[in-house]
Amino acid sequence: MSLLTMDNPVFVTYAIAAAIMVLKLMGQGWMTVYRMLKIDAGWASPEDMRGGLINRNPRPGQLDPNDYVERSRRMHRNDLENIPAFLACGLLFVAVAPSYLLANILMYGFVGSRLVHTLAYATKQSHEVRATLYTIGSIIVIVMAVYVLVAVVW
Amino acid sequence: MSLLTMDNPVFVTYAIAAAIMVLKLMGQGWMTVYRMLKIDAGWASPEDMRGGLINRNPRPGQLDPNDYVERSRRMHRNDLENIPAFLACGLLFVAVAPSYLLANILMYGFVGSRLVHTLAYATKQSHEVRATLYTIGSIIVIVMAVYVLVAVVW
Amino acid sequence: MSLLTMDNPVFVTYAIAAAIMVLKLMGQGWMTVYRMLKIDAGWASPEDMRGGLINRNPRPGQLDPNDYVERSRRMHRNDLENIPAFLACGLLFVAVAPSYLLANILMYGFVGSRLVHTLAYATKQSHEVRATLYTIGSIIVIVMAVYVLVAVVW
Repeated sequence: MSLLTMDNPVFVTYAIAAAIMVLKLMGQGWMTVYRMLKIDAGWASPEDMRGGLINRNPRPGQLDPNDYVERSRRMHRNDLENIPAFLACGLLFVAVAPSYLLANILMYGFVGSRLVHTLAYATKQSHEVRATLYTIGSIIVIVMAVYVLVAVVW
Repeated sequence: MSLLTMDNPVFVTYAIAAAIMVLKLMGQGWMTVYRMLKIDAGWASPEDMRGGLINRNPRPGQLDPNDYVERSRRMHRNDLENIPAFLACGLLFVAVAPSYLLANILMYGFVGSRLVHTLAYATKQSHEVRATLYTIGSIIVIVMAVYVLVAVVW
Repeated sequence: MSLLTMDNPVFVTYAIAAAIMVLKLMGQGWMTVYRMLKIDAGWASPEDMRGGLINRNPRPGQLDPNDYVERSRRMHRNDLENIPAFLACGLLFVAVAPSYLLANILMYGFVGSRLVHTLAYATKQSHEVRATLYTIGSIIVIVMAVYVLVAVVW
């Protein structure tokens, strides 16, 4: 019997957590776009220097790295290092039939840690705060992966 | 009943779209390899400066960023910011049983927007063209994620 | 009938391979953390220069790129360019019912090539060694994607 259906409450938890994380990931791209448009700089490609609707006032330096924009790119990179692994691992976790309580703690724990990580990164909180939130999310994915291996191999 | 089987035409659409996007993603790595080999530069690691089958003529500057190669890396990064989210979100979308027509529009719409985005980026089209294609793909993933949340929570 | 269950030995192979690859991916983040802490440099964000538990001795230059740390980031990037595509494509591959032997060869072949690639990158083996291992992993994902397309379209 398949556990990957909406009849399985654990799969529903996964679907909610995963959809929120996908929105987080896509939203980070739009934060970069917003920041590039706002400061009218931090572009990535030489052709972005051409005048047009997006770049109405081409001038030297628009391709230089700019921390306001680079911060959003670093946040995106940090997401890419964590969220796709969660999306794949969460599905496997559902397939090995964990308890509903454990699934909710781990999956919403991951979602919470990544959302607060985003807030902490955007508002330039200390490295300790960011590291703690990163650690929570990372350990949750590691726990899920080990749980899958143990469930499968035993 | 599982919707994640080949008996479900929506899953078949997902499988085709996802397999094409995986090939796109892997192909981008090979475009970077091709460009590095063609200009014999743009290497990333100090040890790549050692002579060998790949680097027959080691010389200073081979590790410097080179736009011909960096462009392919930027295209790859743009893919990584969009395609894995689509792959995970598309599967969830199948699981909430959307209409066949809607699934085809969204999934092949995503595939089309990303393939044309690749072409536009490689041929240095204006930022406006690239941004439009990026926007189409991004909004499709966002629509699918919101659709999943609405279907699950309602 | 769903093939994405633990009753299907091919899915079990996928679950083991995917869980190992998720651990590899998360572990790479920790290698970067370990290296940043060990050399007390290679930080990424301006706020990491503030003194605290992580940075007990703030000094100029801690934000400069440092190859010891950048190597781990390049390894991570290389993983991100390959592993998420494998995770998605492997699931599709299970769904088109390949032979158990073929699935084991391809999936454990991918896992092996990526683990040895990690070792080769960390120990600064020649570009030829790294390229060979990258190629094996990449071709395996491409083969799986083409197999899915052929199985679905035929």
